[in-house]
Amino acid sequence: SGLVHIKNPYLDSMEEDVLYHLDLGTKTHNLPAMFGDIKFVCVGGSPNRMRAFAHFMHKELGLMGDGEDLADICAGTDRYAMYRAGPVLSISHGMGIPSISIMLHELIKLLHHAKCRDVTIIRIGTSGGLGIEAGSVVITDMAVDSSFKPRFEQVVLDDVVVRSTELDKDLAEELLACSKDIPDFRTLIGHTMCTYDFYEGQGRLDGALCSFSSEKKLEYLKRAYDAGVRNIEMESTAFAALCGLCGLKGESSCSRLR
Amino acid sequence: SGLVHIKNPYLDSMEEDVLYHLDLGTKTHNLPAMFGDIKFVCVGGSPNRMRAFAHFMHKELGLMGDGEDLADICAGTDRYAMYRAGPVLSISHGMGIPSISIMLHELIKLLHHAKCRDVTIIRIGTSGGLGIEAGSVVITDMAVDSSFKPRFEQVVLDDVVVRSTELDKDLAEELLACSKDIPDFRTLIGHTMCTYDFYEGQGRLDGALCSFSSEKKLEYLKRAYDAGVRNIEMESTAFAALCGLCGLKGESSCSRLR
Repeated sequence: SGLVHIKNPYLDSMEEDVLYHLDLGTKTHNLPAMFGDIKFVCVGGSPNRMRAFAHFMHKELGLMGDGEDLADICAGTDRYAMYRAGPVLSISHGMGIPSISIMLHELIKLLHHAKCRDVTIIRIGTSGGLGIEAGSVVITDMAVDSSFKPRFEQVVLDDVVVRSTELDKDLAEELLACSKDIPDFRTLIGHTMCTYDFYEGQGRLDGALCSFSSEKKLEYLKRAYDAGVRNIEMESTAFAALCGLCGLKGESSCSRLR
Repeated sequence: SGLVHIKNPYLDSMEEDVLYHLDLGTKTHNLPAMFGDIKFVCVGGSPNRMRAFAHFMHKELGLMGDGEDLADICAGTDRYAMYRAGPVLSISHGMGIPSISIMLHELIKLLHHAKCRDVTIIRIGTSGGLGIEAGSVVITDMAVDSSFKPRFEQVVLDDVVVRSTELDKDLAEELLACSKDIPDFRTLIGHTMCTYDFYEGQGRLDGALCSFSSEKKLEYLKRAYDAGVRNIEMESTAFAALCGLCGLKGESSCSRLR
């Protein structure tokens, strides 16, 4: 049917669903009217960048007006920012798995309540690169954890549930084909490693704590490269697991920032 | 000496330390002049709330001016917001362990570079309460994980290191004593449970996914209560572990929001 799959037997019997961190709700907003025609959702960490992206999409799609006055749909909260440009929704998710998870739970319910169909979701964040040129874009075929395994360990109450982190392979190939139309746009398909920590988790030598040697860091990053990892960020495994379970066609493509 | 402990042998030999997510650095900013007299750091999730808190402190401390024009010291980035009011620094940390960890690494290095002494750090966020009245403030004596254990599992490269999450007991007692001076200010000392997930991790029945019954949820929360947990949030174990390791006198006191 192309609809989003909600896997929660309680949801449809609730009188009201408050999407608390988005400052939206089923009683306070007409979600089908506001969002029913959304076909693409692009997400990234920074609110300013997601505003700039919505503005860019507004111009690319040739929409009316100059797009300078795009309103933050989540203006009543400073947890996330959300903008739309035609059928494209652009949302910030902050940094790290817990932050993107809260946003995705509420976004998926939003798409469900709005009865959206055939929605494609793409994470367009920044990342650290591994053996690739700065400015390259990595399209993720598989999100892997810090042991290079394609899995996301979700704690449900006090049980650990292991979820798959595969992303939509056709969408990855489609995005790669698009990139070929643009000259000098370095794009590749590879695994994306997702960590819980930026400093100690990604082998940085400049955190407040650093207990490993430069050699041990390089040895770890080489093992990651040999396992197919081409970039490192902090959201992709949760993104892939949640989108996959809810039937959202999802992709993650991050540019190497530094 | 009262100085912050940096446990990174590489840091002092670096020519420049860029505190990237705070948009500050040792070459671009005179950190001792800007921050050398800081004695208290208060952190919380939301940038707007931390601005409001700085404004409140400005008034409470009777500082010059009305405090309405407090500038965001991290204005060049939208990752975090930082304000100061006299000796108090007020910083946002976003939601979840990865987000607060990035901020704390860079804050701890900032305090080190600025040669601050005897700094007390307090997390003043919101949380879900467990068997306590709405509006109550829980002062954390111990941060525990989703199995009610006082530990934080930090992934360092691909090793898991277990860290202690004890907080400063004297500071907790001092805060409790302060609260007694204010009538009708419900305050208690208890354990704070820290989870990686807001919906499935905290037993909510209204996420996009929910695989447990209402009974199983209640049974889990009852076990948490019996283990001494009085509130649930998403940052305290990482906060306690990092502050403890770096010799910062730290406390977490969260009000029950709902």
